[in-house]
Amino acid sequence: MGYQKVAFLLTLITVVGLAVQCNAGVTSTYRRRLAASVDMPLDADVFQVPSGYNAPQQVHITQGDYDGTAVIVSWVTADAPGSNTVKYGKSKNNLHLSAEGDVRQYTFYNYTSGYIHHCLLQNLEIDSTYYYAVGENDSVRQFSFKTPPAIGPDVPYTFGLIGDLGQTYDSNSTLTHYKANQDAGALLFVGDFSYADNYPNHDNVRWDTWGRFIESSAAYQPWIWTVGNHEIDFVPSIGETVPYKPMSNRYPTPYCASGSTELFYYSVRRASAHIIVLASYTAYGKYTPQYQWLQAELKKVDRTKTPWLIVLLHSPWYNSYNYHYMEGETMRVQFEAWMVQYKVDVVFAGHVHAYERFHRISNIDYNITNANCLPVPNNNAPVYITIGDGGNIEGLATNMT
Amino acid sequence: MGYQKVAFLLTLITVVGLAVQCNAGVTSTYRRRLAASVDMPLDADVFQVPSGYNAPQQVHITQGDYDGTAVIVSWVTADAPGSNTVKYGKSKNNLHLSAEGDVRQYTFYNYTSGYIHHCLLQNLEIDSTYYYAVGENDSVRQFSFKTPPAIGPDVPYTFGLIGDLGQTYDSNSTLTHYKANQDAGALLFVGDFSYADNYPNHDNVRWDTWGRFIESSAAYQPWIWTVGNHEIDFVPSIGETVPYKPMSNRYPTPYCASGSTELFYYSVRRASAHIIVLASYTAYGKYTPQYQWLQAELKKVDRTKTPWLIVLLHSPWYNSYNYHYMEGETMRVQFEAWMVQYKVDVVFAGHVHAYERFHRISNIDYNITNANCLPVPNNNAPVYITIGDGGNIEGLATNMT
Repeated sequence: MGYQKVAFLLTLITVVGLAVQCNAGVTSTYRRRLAASVDMPLDADVFQVPSGYNAPQQVHITQGDYDGTAVIVSWVTADAPGSNTVKYGKSKNNLHLSAEGDVRQYTFYNYTSGYIHHCLLQNLEIDSTYYYAVGENDSVRQFSFKTPPAIGPDVPYTFGLIGDLGQTYDSNSTLTHYKANQDAGALLFVGDFSYADNYPNHDNVRWDTWGRFIESSAAYQPWIWTVGNHEIDFVPSIGETVPYKPMSNRYPTPYCASGSTELFYYSVRRASAHIIVLASYTAYGKYTPQYQWLQAELKKVDRTKTPWLIVLLHSPWYNSYNYHYMEGETMRVQFEAWMVQYKVDVVFAGHVHAYERFHRISNIDYNITNANCLPVPNNNAPVYITIGDGGNIEGLATNMT
Repeated sequence: MGYQKVAFLLTLITVVGLAVQCNAGVTSTYRRRLAASVDMPLDADVFQVPSGYNAPQQVHITQGDYDGTAVIVSWVTADAPGSNTVKYGKSKNNLHLSAEGDVRQYTFYNYTSGYIHHCLLQNLEIDSTYYYAVGENDSVRQFSFKTPPAIGPDVPYTFGLIGDLGQTYDSNSTLTHYKANQDAGALLFVGDFSYADNYPNHDNVRWDTWGRFIESSAAYQPWIWTVGNHEIDFVPSIGETVPYKPMSNRYPTPYCASGSTELFYYSVRRASAHIIVLASYTAYGKYTPQYQWLQAELKKVDRTKTPWLIVLLHSPWYNSYNYHYMEGETMRVQFEAWMVQYKVDVVFAGHVHAYERFHRISNIDYNITNANCLPVPNNNAPVYITIGDGGNIEGLATNMT
């Protein structure tokens, strides 16, 4: 049977065995304080630039393929493009493998990014610790990660869960708390990264500080990215009319591996879980690419291999807080019936800065004229869990409808 | 008071005077036959390429600014890029003005387009007939259009309305019927243009035939474009993963003039009407660019200048046919309350191949827990009219819920 450990601030979910439905939950005693925190100053320890000329910074990894035998390594260099090479291997002192990535820069109003590198490491052995190094000369930096076991129904695996993190003192508390737990092999991030858009002109320096802030976790285990509204970064008043520019340049996803054609919706399989990432702010109406992709992807789910079917999205479909009330309604109307049809185990969302967990309910019988529009218990429905309380500057939502 | 003439196949709406609400309708006796038609063959008369080396073909115009004193002229040359110049003037024999446009080509799988020209004519005088010519040497072709009167509350103006046109024999009947009516000064097209996507690999030759087909109207009066699902042209299986490629290359809109940042949602004002074009297949959730744009645009509506507020979109929010039933629901959930708040007069949609007109109803009181989810009479709500019976190859929808 399934076992699930749910924290108020931060959820760890352990997927075990043939459980198609997760029925048990344990909620941690950790509690976020109610008062909103403030962003850490630019010179905070967790934002420090590593020493050395052109030293790689903001190192983070994400899953690089469908089944977890590839990793995308990303990092930024500030002084020069530098090397795009990642050296790696299973021995800490013998990084005999190497892969070549690419490098890019982007501008955002009056900001110019550093040199952003992405490099795909492929054909990794399962269930193995890899060491990898980026940078050149005296500024080489070394990290490690552990690949997941092979896809299969009897493969326990623990995921971390964070949403709406930001870069406040509370964000730091969240991340410190998360890192203290040694169980999780990967983190499911449900959107709203840096909150740089709270600064004038969406000061992208705060994207850099955030990248340095999360490195102590994200360089060592894949963070699986879900897009949130704070990643839209759409500011026509300053000429920034292409949405998602910072995120799309900085945080790659393995979308192609699952047949997706856009960065923001995709699937990965990891251990006993099939994880579907949806984009709350990309079109999802019938006929759209996201709709077509999800329709096809759900048919590919094989519960004999991945008994756990987990969906990540940013704006929750069920939410009892006044904060963002019913914002997810338009997407729920489009996709909820599929979640029930395919017996999704759990849908994790962020956006609402609170923890909330629903019984298995559905609201899919409405046909305009029948007034059947109340959520009803449904054992085939997912559990909906909101975990948007990562600690960002906007504070907690506490006012319920 | 408002006066509205509604045809079964093809709707003409005449906006007159200070009417904020249109209360009277006259339905024409014209009826589409029930059987689906077939596409006209490639050598049909209406598809003929004009004679002469590199002669401009597929000439069409659309409004080029917010208030109707500009026009975008578009045309295709097949043999060479040719000239990007439009010569124009108010005297048929003295085209003393000229404007320079641009030229582009695109590929779609194994198809390569002709040379597609777009040229903006600006600062036109109101309520005037202009003559314009495109092409060079022996292949110059001349057309004309009439600019609308100045924006104002007491300015009668008649719009034509077509949706889901296609290029069948019935499509030809629709267009012939429309051209026989001399009243309309511009056409509001509610999406689904050529139906080229019904052909293998979305054979874009059928975009060319459609361009030649509509020229006899669209070269002489602006067609105001709304995007439909048949314009998505998303075919990952043949490597075509950028949606809207044919439409976005061929059919410009004046989206910038209304502060929009994407081709598919925008506003134009014309005579006594403020016309808002929405995109059914572009993201519209809260925070998205379309949402932000519409929120701002509705605030700009000045009923003392444009008493008529008309919305165009492709997938209807209210629809009693089984065909495409509830497909527009997700967008209705997001935007319907604004339509009521701003007292939109009428929302025209296509998509469903039928004519249907609703009483003024709304369904905006639902809050998840109150079961208030039935449409109710509401005098502040728009009239919803579906006119997707333009004659395309898919035939009429006749089966109602």
